[in-house]
Amino acid sequence: MSRTVFLGELLVRLSATGKQLLATTPALDVHVGGAEANVAVGMAMLGAETAMVSVVPGNAFGQRARAHLAAAGVDARGVIEAPGRMGLYVLTPGAGVRASDILYDRADSSFARLGPGAFDWRALLQGASRLHLSGITPALGPGSAALALEAAAAAEAAGVAISFDGNYRARLWEAWESDPKSILTQLVAKADILFGNHQDIGLLLGQPVPGDGAARRRAAAELAFAAFPKLRLMASTARHVLDADRHGISARIDTRDGGHQTEEVLVSGIVDRIGAGDAFAAGVLAALDRGLGEAEAVEWGLALTALKHSLPGDASLFGVADIEAFRAGARDVRR
Amino acid sequence: MSRTVFLGELLVRLSATGKQLLATTPALDVHVGGAEANVAVGMAMLGAETAMVSVVPGNAFGQRARAHLAAAGVDARGVIEAPGRMGLYVLTPGAGVRASDILYDRADSSFARLGPGAFDWRALLQGASRLHLSGITPALGPGSAALALEAAAAAEAAGVAISFDGNYRARLWEAWESDPKSILTQLVAKADILFGNHQDIGLLLGQPVPGDGAARRRAAAELAFAAFPKLRLMASTARHVLDADRHGISARIDTRDGGHQTEEVLVSGIVDRIGAGDAFAAGVLAALDRGLGEAEAVEWGLALTALKHSLPGDASLFGVADIEAFRAGARDVRR
Amino acid sequence: MSRTVFLGELLVRLSATGKQLLATTPALDVHVGGAEANVAVGMAMLGAETAMVSVVPGNAFGQRARAHLAAAGVDARGVIEAPGRMGLYVLTPGAGVRASDILYDRADSSFARLGPGAFDWRALLQGASRLHLSGITPALGPGSAALALEAAAAAEAAGVAISFDGNYRARLWEAWESDPKSILTQLVAKADILFGNHQDIGLLLGQPVPGDGAARRRAAAELAFAAFPKLRLMASTARHVLDADRHGISARIDTRDGGHQTEEVLVSGIVDRIGAGDAFAAGVLAALDRGLGEAEAVEWGLALTALKHSLPGDASLFGVADIEAFRAGARDVRR
Amino acid sequence: MSRTVFLGELLVRLSATGKQLLATTPALDVHVGGAEANVAVGMAMLGAETAMVSVVPGNAFGQRARAHLAAAGVDARGVIEAPGRMGLYVLTPGAGVRASDILYDRADSSFARLGPGAFDWRALLQGASRLHLSGITPALGPGSAALALEAAAAAEAAGVAISFDGNYRARLWEAWESDPKSILTQLVAKADILFGNHQDIGLLLGQPVPGDGAARRRAAAELAFAAFPKLRLMASTARHVLDADRHGISARIDTRDGGHQTEEVLVSGIVDRIGAGDAFAAGVLAALDRGLGEAEAVEWGLALTALKHSLPGDASLFGVADIEAFRAGARDVRR
Amino acid sequence: MSRTVFLGELLVRLSATGKQLLATTPALDVHVGGAEANVAVGMAMLGAETAMVSVVPGNAFGQRARAHLAAAGVDARGVIEAPGRMGLYVLTPGAGVRASDILYDRADSSFARLGPGAFDWRALLQGASRLHLSGITPALGPGSAALALEAAAAAEAAGVAISFDGNYRARLWEAWESDPKSILTQLVAKADILFGNHQDIGLLLGQPVPGDGAARRRAAAELAFAAFPKLRLMASTARHVLDADRHGISARIDTRDGGHQTEEVLVSGIVDRIGAGDAFAAGVLAALDRGLGEAEAVEWGLALTALKHSLPGDASLFGVADIEAFRAGARDVRR
Amino acid sequence: MSRTVFLGELLVRLSATGKQLLATTPALDVHVGGAEANVAVGMAMLGAETAMVSVVPGNAFGQRARAHLAAAGVDARGVIEAPGRMGLYVLTPGAGVRASDILYDRADSSFARLGPGAFDWRALLQGASRLHLSGITPALGPGSAALALEAAAAAEAAGVAISFDGNYRARLWEAWESDPKSILTQLVAKADILFGNHQDIGLLLGQPVPGDGAARRRAAAELAFAAFPKLRLMASTARHVLDADRHGISARIDTRDGGHQTEEVLVSGIVDRIGAGDAFAAGVLAALDRGLGEAEAVEWGLALTALKHSLPGDASLFGVADIEAFRAGARDVRR
Ligand SMILES: [Ca+2]
Ligand SMILES: [Ca+2]
Ligand SMILES: [Ca+2]
Ligand SMILES: [Ca+2]
Ligand SMILES: [Ca+2]
Ligand SMILES: [Ca+2]
Ligand SMILES: [Ca+2]
Ligand SMILES: [Ca+2]
Ligand SMILES: [Ca+2]
Ligand SMILES: [Ca+2]
Ligand SMILES: [Ca+2]
Ligand SMILES: [Ca+2]
Ligand code: NI
Ligand code: NI
Ligand code: NI
Ligand code: NI
Ligand code: NI
Ligand code: NI
Ligand code: NI
Ligand code: NI
Ligand code: NI
Ligand code: NI
Ligand code: NI
Ligand code: NI
Ligand code: NI
Ligand code: NI
Ligand code: NI
Ligand code: NI
Ligand code: NI
Ligand code: NI
Repeated sequence: MSRTVFLGELLVRLSATGKQLLATTPALDVHVGGAEANVAVGMAMLGAETAMVSVVPGNAFGQRARAHLAAAGVDARGVIEAPGRMGLYVLTPGAGVRASDILYDRADSSFARLGPGAFDWRALLQGASRLHLSGITPALGPGSAALALEAAAAAEAAGVAISFDGNYRARLWEAWESDPKSILTQLVAKADILFGNHQDIGLLLGQPVPGDGAARRRAAAELAFAAFPKLRLMASTARHVLDADRHGISARIDTRDGGHQTEEVLVSGIVDRIGAGDAFAAGVLAALDRGLGEAEAVEWGLALTALKHSLPGDASLFGVADIEAFRAGARDVRR
Repeated sequence: MSRTVFLGELLVRLSATGKQLLATTPALDVHVGGAEANVAVGMAMLGAETAMVSVVPGNAFGQRARAHLAAAGVDARGVIEAPGRMGLYVLTPGAGVRASDILYDRADSSFARLGPGAFDWRALLQGASRLHLSGITPALGPGSAALALEAAAAAEAAGVAISFDGNYRARLWEAWESDPKSILTQLVAKADILFGNHQDIGLLLGQPVPGDGAARRRAAAELAFAAFPKLRLMASTARHVLDADRHGISARIDTRDGGHQTEEVLVSGIVDRIGAGDAFAAGVLAALDRGLGEAEAVEWGLALTALKHSLPGDASLFGVADIEAFRAGARDVRR
Repeated sequence: MSRTVFLGELLVRLSATGKQLLATTPALDVHVGGAEANVAVGMAMLGAETAMVSVVPGNAFGQRARAHLAAAGVDARGVIEAPGRMGLYVLTPGAGVRASDILYDRADSSFARLGPGAFDWRALLQGASRLHLSGITPALGPGSAALALEAAAAAEAAGVAISFDGNYRARLWEAWESDPKSILTQLVAKADILFGNHQDIGLLLGQPVPGDGAARRRAAAELAFAAFPKLRLMASTARHVLDADRHGISARIDTRDGGHQTEEVLVSGIVDRIGAGDAFAAGVLAALDRGLGEAEAVEWGLALTALKHSLPGDASLFGVADIEAFRAGARDVRR
Repeated sequence: MSRTVFLGELLVRLSATGKQLLATTPALDVHVGGAEANVAVGMAMLGAETAMVSVVPGNAFGQRARAHLAAAGVDARGVIEAPGRMGLYVLTPGAGVRASDILYDRADSSFARLGPGAFDWRALLQGASRLHLSGITPALGPGSAALALEAAAAAEAAGVAISFDGNYRARLWEAWESDPKSILTQLVAKADILFGNHQDIGLLLGQPVPGDGAARRRAAAELAFAAFPKLRLMASTARHVLDADRHGISARIDTRDGGHQTEEVLVSGIVDRIGAGDAFAAGVLAALDRGLGEAEAVEWGLALTALKHSLPGDASLFGVADIEAFRAGARDVRR
Repeated sequence: MSRTVFLGELLVRLSATGKQLLATTPALDVHVGGAEANVAVGMAMLGAETAMVSVVPGNAFGQRARAHLAAAGVDARGVIEAPGRMGLYVLTPGAGVRASDILYDRADSSFARLGPGAFDWRALLQGASRLHLSGITPALGPGSAALALEAAAAAEAAGVAISFDGNYRARLWEAWESDPKSILTQLVAKADILFGNHQDIGLLLGQPVPGDGAARRRAAAELAFAAFPKLRLMASTARHVLDADRHGISARIDTRDGGHQTEEVLVSGIVDRIGAGDAFAAGVLAALDRGLGEAEAVEWGLALTALKHSLPGDASLFGVADIEAFRAGARDVRR
Repeated sequence: MSRTVFLGELLVRLSATGKQLLATTPALDVHVGGAEANVAVGMAMLGAETAMVSVVPGNAFGQRARAHLAAAGVDARGVIEAPGRMGLYVLTPGAGVRASDILYDRADSSFARLGPGAFDWRALLQGASRLHLSGITPALGPGSAALALEAAAAAEAAGVAISFDGNYRARLWEAWESDPKSILTQLVAKADILFGNHQDIGLLLGQPVPGDGAARRRAAAELAFAAFPKLRLMASTARHVLDADRHGISARIDTRDGGHQTEEVLVSGIVDRIGAGDAFAAGVLAALDRGLGEAEAVEWGLALTALKHSLPGDASLFGVADIEAFRAGARDVRR
């Protein structure tokens, strides 16, 4: 069976309850997140073999993060403890015409303090078929950037494929003396799968991708394939936001041979929009690991991202039967 | 005043909370359900005289079921105690593109263990003008099927009219060596009111009802009237499911003279879709008991089923004023 | 800085929870309301200087009402204690096709018992640039009507401008031997800003305003300007209620020079519709106090009323950044 | 079977949640109470036949009060609707060294507005073996006092025995031009069972009962038997309040022949102390109705009052098995 | 490191909330239990290596049970899926003088349906140093009894030590044609560690153990050592139940050389008493696995069982630091 | 009227709910704390005039902290905004034999980043009669220590008295190159009122205060009076911790003339022990401000600290009536 190893920060998310604002909510819901961990959990719930590499403080928050992974079936033995605090973020879920709001409080976390040399990559990558990284880790600071590059190099050396999720976060990059274009280019250059859209490609190539709609999405892929010889698949979603409760989403996968784009599905009655992109990646990777083709994989990704919006928390907890029910059009009570 | 007697199983429903999945919800909401009981409660809240006949275990679940009926004004003296467990079902309410899901755990209940001979029908039907049955009771097993037939025969003998709700549940019938077509035909043959649609008629007659839309609904009714000489009224809803939160519903009543079909109403913001069919039956029967014609009765049924979607729990708790407000178009705050 | 003084009753609102009916909800949410106080809170959260004048009983409900104001930054020193009970109202929030419902229980409150002479208006209006009143206070009974007139006269004498919100409540006026047209006319005659629509003007002038849509809104304003020489600005919203969760709203401001009407915005996923009109007034007045013109003020009012629907409780708690985000079209997660 | 009829006001109780104060609690729990109704519910749950006579407003609060009675098996057909509001009271449950606090808001209720002539006592008392009254009804005002006397006279005329619970509430009597001693004396003179202690007797006789402990309790009973020839049984509890969570309680029944006093039981871990006296009366009356002697009845009363402290809400919902388990010393898990 | 393998049924527990009764609670808390699984979780949280062998249905309840184990760090790969329902039990937590109450609904579960031959014991016991069983499994029916004996025989054959927890449940044994004495004797005969008290020994030996207090506990141990040559350690707690919230507990370990008995600790403010015995076993076994002597192990067991009472749910989730804090006397805030 | 100005950090407290551990609680309750702010709130609720000087970040947490103060009637205009995060702490409330646990996450807060020069002390202290400081501020780092000294010097210069609460937190002092003895000595030397016990004095004087009980408490006071010529009053509580739910507390005030020590009160049923020391200080200071003597003030302090244990949150919200009820022995329901 395929085995995907993930490197990334684990975060504790606190969410305001009952549609209230952070300034007045009497309580905060607690969830565990982190972009890469969300993909790991989403894949594990679909039966994929996954393993997390990360760092948490030796307190109850760290314990919670590991239990969250283990409960989903992710191998959490690579999550070590180190000094520092737990990275937090506070979500005020939106409603109707009010947008959701996130307050980050992740500075100086155990993970962000870490640099290269912390992990025995040879051991951690043993038996792995893929290493999954995202653009968040290198954005956390120079040590984290070096750590991401170290991991990618180790994977390349070990013959382990790399999937990379753009996840560009301007605020993180701007918080230090960074060169995101250079670092991200080094990482994408090692990837065979890229989760990213025309904006990510525009950033990497230093100029916006011209055009519109499906054509621009194809153009971005072709530019990426030209710039990054190892890249063989690029996947993305496009989102039309009507209000906080209703989004239209279409998914697309491009290979060097051509692209597969889904219909736009109306995702209404949104419960929790966080982690929807991570669920998309989980759906696509899990499908590919099952040997399904791109045409199927893009539908799995669409299904999982759509379903994720109906579930509180950062990660998809859906199983294969849920994907099948969604694709079969089940919307009324399943008895 | 008219008095309707109901025979059917009482169930305890456990529902996942906070849009969470059953595998992770920290708590389960508790409600009392059961198709026939839901109709009884819905009618009683509209001022109709109703009485329930059923069996529960002599424990707190059984006590709860009786209190649920009594609180709504249903005469619950016909609910006796007998060995066995309480039938349960676990609902995971859907959200947006995620369908609701039901896990049944009703096998070996006090009710399902029961067979004919358990009740003194002569006494229980005294003063009754109608006996209401549904297709769920005979589906529970040979004893329950015989019980349903016994009740129907007793009603016929006592000159008590019978209304019957199809409620076809394939999984229940398939769990034992059953002949649903034969048993249901015997029951429908005794009914003067049938809640059922073209699929129920197709099942009873052994072949699908051809056509589409309103025409097919009328065709089904005419086939039913032809096959069942005692039948004088057939009622149904048709449902277009957009997603878990938005359904379009239209109601229809057919008599031998013709049919009344409502506009399709968009039921959005769905809170709890369970028991909507039972609320429709309650609305229709309560209207008929007030001497209203079919054209009014179908609107009462539509109003009560539409309103039911806004209320947690299995049964409609609405009063006549709520039906009137709905029909008058009240959607903004009523002060 | 401008300072607005408010006179009006403070109410405690109890709301059924979990989409349940008042007859079955296990708990009632507690909020503090009152039309004028809602405007005060909404303005204070936008940085305006505000002060409340009111009366509460000397118990925990009264204490709660004052804390609610103070937490929002409203000067609550003008809220005195007097015998009587706290006015209550009980909200059963609607859902989908079920309308919200309000049960008032405000008779014999400390505020309603009060008459003129209770306040030292000279002191309370010192430093004020505006007095805000609404049509609810004079509707509570002869003493309250006299109190409202006394306040308006004191403001006029002190050179303090008056804004008036129609808030016509037929049931309150009908509960005593009242002459609403006469009393309201006296109050509006002293106002330079009126929150009201064609129905309010129709009531004041004794005949309906003819026409439809924007034309009727302008016609109403022109009739008002003709009838009330001091009036310089009239503002209103128009609401299309699709169901309890979705309303279309457009806002309009008229001056003697002409009018500004916004697009209709679809307010979906409604969480709490109460106080939306008060939020509109707060948005308009806060914008005007910042020196913005009518074209901007009407957009502020629209933004604040739209956002209010997403927030539990009677008052808008949004800040300037929220208005800006809404106007910039932010609907997806703000990170 | 014995049948007890109850006259008294039904109240809605709102309780602060989570050990918070009324000024800050985000929600209020809703329960139905009323001293006489609590006794009715407590008895009905023990299998006794009971019927309530009362008045509620025609709104959801009134509907709730009736459903509360019906769910417990109390015959609620004697609860009529009339204009007025629902009487409310707001409980702030204590904790540890902080005492519980009650804020009454029951003035001008439907019940308090009522006077004699409202009920057809002949019909309501048909088949009854006992009428239960308490000292709260006559304290509500001259109309209510006349109503209580009317009911007592009707019972006497019909040969229906009367039980009377002192429930002396000084604040209610002081709110109007009342003569509690005279009115209560008339009522107690008609009773064969009195729930009251040495303080009640002291009030009725116009001088304190001298002494201490069991001796004073016996002395009070003997004074009562001397003053009221119809009286045959007097019952009371004595309570040592350690803090809000721990009370010591002993119960006593006196007849003309002598008294039975229980050990003092330590009631710790108190959940809800309201209605404990009503539960005592329910336990005693239910035991007497089963033909048990005073020595048993006082233990039933003690058991039910002790158990009541463990249950949220105003009324005991315990069954005979719970009394038996308590008396058998069950304190650990019953499997 | 030592590795303990557990065989036993996983149960879902539903608990009434807010101190309410099962007949009225609006919701049920969900936890995963099962005596042997509770020991596994308790040990794993103390850092021990543990693995569960069990059977669950292939539905969300089964998924939940596995996630519960995995989150605590128990190896759950031995938990297979098979037809049948999930065993449930419903807890009504007690309060004060009201005892907790359990309603079992575990008949016909996937686990209870299972018989010998279902597991590959050679593989499952590989690397194990201990097999933990309890008296519940053999009580479930003849198939389960045979399964327990099969497991014990396989362990004996593989040189894996056995610990056995008496957990005598009369109701389970009485539900079928059983011979508990014979079956339990066979199992205890294979154990080197027995969790049981004088009552268990009395049952096994067919006559009560005479005496009282510590003497009787020693006597029971000596009788057990005499009767069961393989047995080397017996451990038990003794419990004085003051009320549902306060228990006095003392622990004891006996070996053939002598015994260690702790002081009685007053466990007050009990939150959840379920699983306290399992926590005791977990504490003792984890201490022994760390190489601590009996004098230390009995204190670990006492600490873990005492702490368990403070935690909702069936299993101890405490770590070594919590045991140390308890033993150091920490009762006030740890900062 | 006296006016007390407070300098100190505002913290947001997150508390695990439902007696669960931080690793598993689904939600965290949100409260605002901070030792000095707790005293300010406690005094303001008793009618004292108070003003807070502090720094918060310009986000919703900062807004919440200010609203918390304002709602209680504290003048919050001296709470400014500055870069940095909000200091957090996470409380896991204990239960029974399980101690409460606090996880601090307050490093790098807006307040901790601040140094001297940030405030215009002359303006802030205008009209003040007292400045209240605690030992927490100087422990946060060199900047905070300098800030505390600056404030104390400004008060001394302005003739404003100083009260100082020891609040020694070893972990904070140990986190940097600090000299607590020297810094604290400088601060205490300026105080006329000291909240501290024999341990604080031992620390300041460099050697433990010998003896036991009341004698040691008096000895500590006499040593303090000798060492600090400005000091005129020292106050403390002594606490016997039985378990997390039950503490025995006695209070003491010493002046140069002698001491007043209260009985030890058993504080049982503890809801929230945090801030109890701050409540004591608030009670003492509020009493002194009302002109009461030490004998009364120590009883006020005892009452407020005892009552605080019954209330969730960090600060006492009790009024004078609550203190009076406590002192009058009210423990049963107050009607
Ligand atoms: Ca994400
Ligand atoms: Ca959430
Ligand atoms: Ca149904
Ligand atoms: Ca529900
Ligand atoms: Ca309003
Ligand atoms: Ca609300
Ligand atoms: Ca009572
Ligand atoms: Ca309660
Ligand atoms: Ca157990
Ligand atoms: Ca629980
Ligand atoms: Ca503190
Ligand atoms: Ca709390
Ligand atoms: Ni959550
Ligand atoms: Ni999780
Ligand atoms: Ni979420
Ligand atoms: Ni519910
Ligand atoms: Ni119900
Ligand atoms: Ni539901
Ligand atoms: Ni609320
Ligand atoms: Ni508020
Ligand atoms: Ni609201
Ligand atoms: Ni309640
Ligand atoms: Ni009730
Ligand atoms: Ni209560
Ligand atoms: Ni729980
Ligand atoms: Ni669990
Ligand atoms: Ni539990
Ligand atoms: Ni709280
Ligand atoms: Ni606060
Ligand atoms: Ni707290």
